[in-house]
Amino acid sequence: MKKLFLLAAVALVSLVGYAQQALWGSAPVVSPEVHADHTVTFRLKAPKARRVQLHGDFLPTTAIKTERGEFDVAMPVDMVEKDGVWEWTTPQPLQPELYSYNMIIDGVKVNDPSNVYMIRDVASVFSVFIVGGERGDLYSVNEVPHGTVSRIWYESPGLKMNRRLTVYTPAGYEKGGKYPVFYLLHGAGGDEEAWINLGRTSQILDNLIAQGKVEPMIVVMTNGNAWQQAAPGESPLGYTVPSMGTGAQRQAVEADFVSTFPDVVKFVEKTYRVKKGKANRAIAGLSMGAYHSCAISRLYPDMFDYVGLFSGGGGRPNLKDNPLYGDMEGLLAKQFAKKPALYYIACGNRDFLYKGIEEYRQFLTEKGYPFEYFETGEGHIWRNWRIYLSEFAPRLFKK
Amino acid sequence: MKKLFLLAAVALVSLVGYAQQALWGSAPVVSPEVHADHTVTFRLKAPKARRVQLHGDFLPTTAIKTERGEFDVAMPVDMVEKDGVWEWTTPQPLQPELYSYNMIIDGVKVNDPSNVYMIRDVASVFSVFIVGGERGDLYSVNEVPHGTVSRIWYESPGLKMNRRLTVYTPAGYEKGGKYPVFYLLHGAGGDEEAWINLGRTSQILDNLIAQGKVEPMIVVMTNGNAWQQAAPGESPLGYTVPSMGTGAQRQAVEADFVSTFPDVVKFVEKTYRVKKGKANRAIAGLSMGAYHSCAISRLYPDMFDYVGLFSGGGGRPNLKDNPLYGDMEGLLAKQFAKKPALYYIACGNRDFLYKGIEEYRQFLTEKGYPFEYFETGEGHIWRNWRIYLSEFAPRLFKK
Repeated sequence: MKKLFLLAAVALVSLVGYAQQALWGSAPVVSPEVHADHTVTFRLKAPKARRVQLHGDFLPTTAIKTERGEFDVAMPVDMVEKDGVWEWTTPQPLQPELYSYNMIIDGVKVNDPSNVYMIRDVASVFSVFIVGGERGDLYSVNEVPHGTVSRIWYESPGLKMNRRLTVYTPAGYEKGGKYPVFYLLHGAGGDEEAWINLGRTSQILDNLIAQGKVEPMIVVMTNGNAWQQAAPGESPLGYTVPSMGTGAQRQAVEADFVSTFPDVVKFVEKTYRVKKGKANRAIAGLSMGAYHSCAISRLYPDMFDYVGLFSGGGGRPNLKDNPLYGDMEGLLAKQFAKKPALYYIACGNRDFLYKGIEEYRQFLTEKGYPFEYFETGEGHIWRNWRIYLSEFAPRLFKK
Repeated sequence: MKKLFLLAAVALVSLVGYAQQALWGSAPVVSPEVHADHTVTFRLKAPKARRVQLHGDFLPTTAIKTERGEFDVAMPVDMVEKDGVWEWTTPQPLQPELYSYNMIIDGVKVNDPSNVYMIRDVASVFSVFIVGGERGDLYSVNEVPHGTVSRIWYESPGLKMNRRLTVYTPAGYEKGGKYPVFYLLHGAGGDEEAWINLGRTSQILDNLIAQGKVEPMIVVMTNGNAWQQAAPGESPLGYTVPSMGTGAQRQAVEADFVSTFPDVVKFVEKTYRVKKGKANRAIAGLSMGAYHSCAISRLYPDMFDYVGLFSGGGGRPNLKDNPLYGDMEGLLAKQFAKKPALYYIACGNRDFLYKGIEEYRQFLTEKGYPFEYFETGEGHIWRNWRIYLSEFAPRLFKK
């Protein structure tokens, strides 16, 4: 029978159609390389390039004034060429964190060809890496029990379409028991993929639950763009260019998303083994999702005992004729009369929405509505939203 | 209360830390553009580049002889520059299909910066697009009920580690009922992400189930690299450079993967609502996964009634001292004495494993063991494996 055997040329077994491996072999340089002291070296083999730059969220920022406000913007740095390999090393160690970057080859922004790890944010794709320790470890997969992450579709009678959710169920869920539910909402330009990818929800929850700091809970990440069924590439629209849409497009339907939110809750409570009732439900969101969480929780004051507003919250003047927003004061009065267990606001001190959030805090204080406030440095960035999730989640369902 | 409102600068709401949108705006060109006649245009804005090439699995191939055998290899084509934009259009319409490609800017292989849709295959990341119609529609998300795709971890007592599975449950699963289970195994260099991403498993199953051609079933996509907990980036190893490992590394543990496969079945049948018994279990795999499926199904002849060997199958001479492989003839005799409902082999006529599979078919024929054989053109490529899945799945659980 020996002649029936075949020596598989294993190194060639997973060749794709155009046999790229035979042509290119593996990546010619290591990039990024996180050194033991937490400095990081980036490399690109490009002997024919004339200028290679590196752009990333770990570079120092400069405040730039625009008509839309003041922004902290990092400028690209030049990488240095030697023997055809361009290189740049951070002058200082980086703090533990998930970072994102691109390279710019003679003016063309590309992902680092040596790094397969990328995350899409709206219409841009970034190469990513993690510097471990402290928060970096919180965002990493560790030797702890892991929850399950599912992409599941539900029928929304209110929005008259099938829509996609990302759902995290904690380790042990499959074995039984009932769990409280945390609804986690993205910002403008995001979708049901934003929190699980950029937000590191499953890693943060896995790690904090394993440490005993967070109650085992289900986390439901919705798609808050009421005109969409699902994230770009995941709906019948196919591989379209992702877009944030215009403000007008979003506002035309966001009241529908807010008012039909009970559709989501109903589906989740029918589909998963959940603890029911206000004390077992939390809602939080970032930016646009903070406005949504603010509006949903005041429109349905018996639904959520825990409300988190990350880098947003308060009213929306352009929607003030909409009944959802128009009677904001009246709705808030009803909501706070029912004493939510936690009303939590978080913001960076360089956030371009800082002033509005400050005014909302003043309003709550004047009215005597209790809330907690957590302030960080920096602005309207994912680094902050991961921190807010890590701070907010341990506060839930402990009443 | 008007002064409390804040006009959110929505276009800036999802800025990442270094405010790339403010610097770059959206992608400067559309690429790829699939025209109505199914020709496709690729574009790259790169005014300073001196040569830009396009490389993809839709380009014509040339047979190239190497010491490992003859391979069909596509060579890159030159894109043409005009006003700083490099462009190339396929001379002929492309057949409906999922295609992958890269661009090469002055020798540096990159993903298309205008296309956010990418799929990793081993250590390479490809830009992808779909030409619709026929098979292209089968691989697309359509207006049909969608199954749920979960990443779930199980404890493998045999391999002594927690390991990650990708599980597809069909639309309607959440409402109740019991389902048969199809175990689907990847090739060398792949992992539990390969079939769901490159294989389009959820789209193919959603579409064929909606058409009434496939029984609603659970599909379990395992990680066949017994030294790994999970796909690169998804395990405690962190963001390592993906590697196929050496053949020796794989072979040292593949017998363990094969012999401990009942751990997976036990977990699945404990965790999901499944129909039990041989008649309700299928196993198939591509390349290395075909060898695994072949070995698992003959080692456990009462476990699977349906066996699919895609571009692989038969024995492994380098493991012939291992009891799993050593008594291949005896095990096969036992397996076929129990009359599997379907023993299915599929291969491309340009596959570098063709000869060995042909010899295995001859062996089965000589022994009088019934099997079905399905042959396509082309070689050891994902295009074929998607076809085999689309052909094999409708045959399952219809006895």
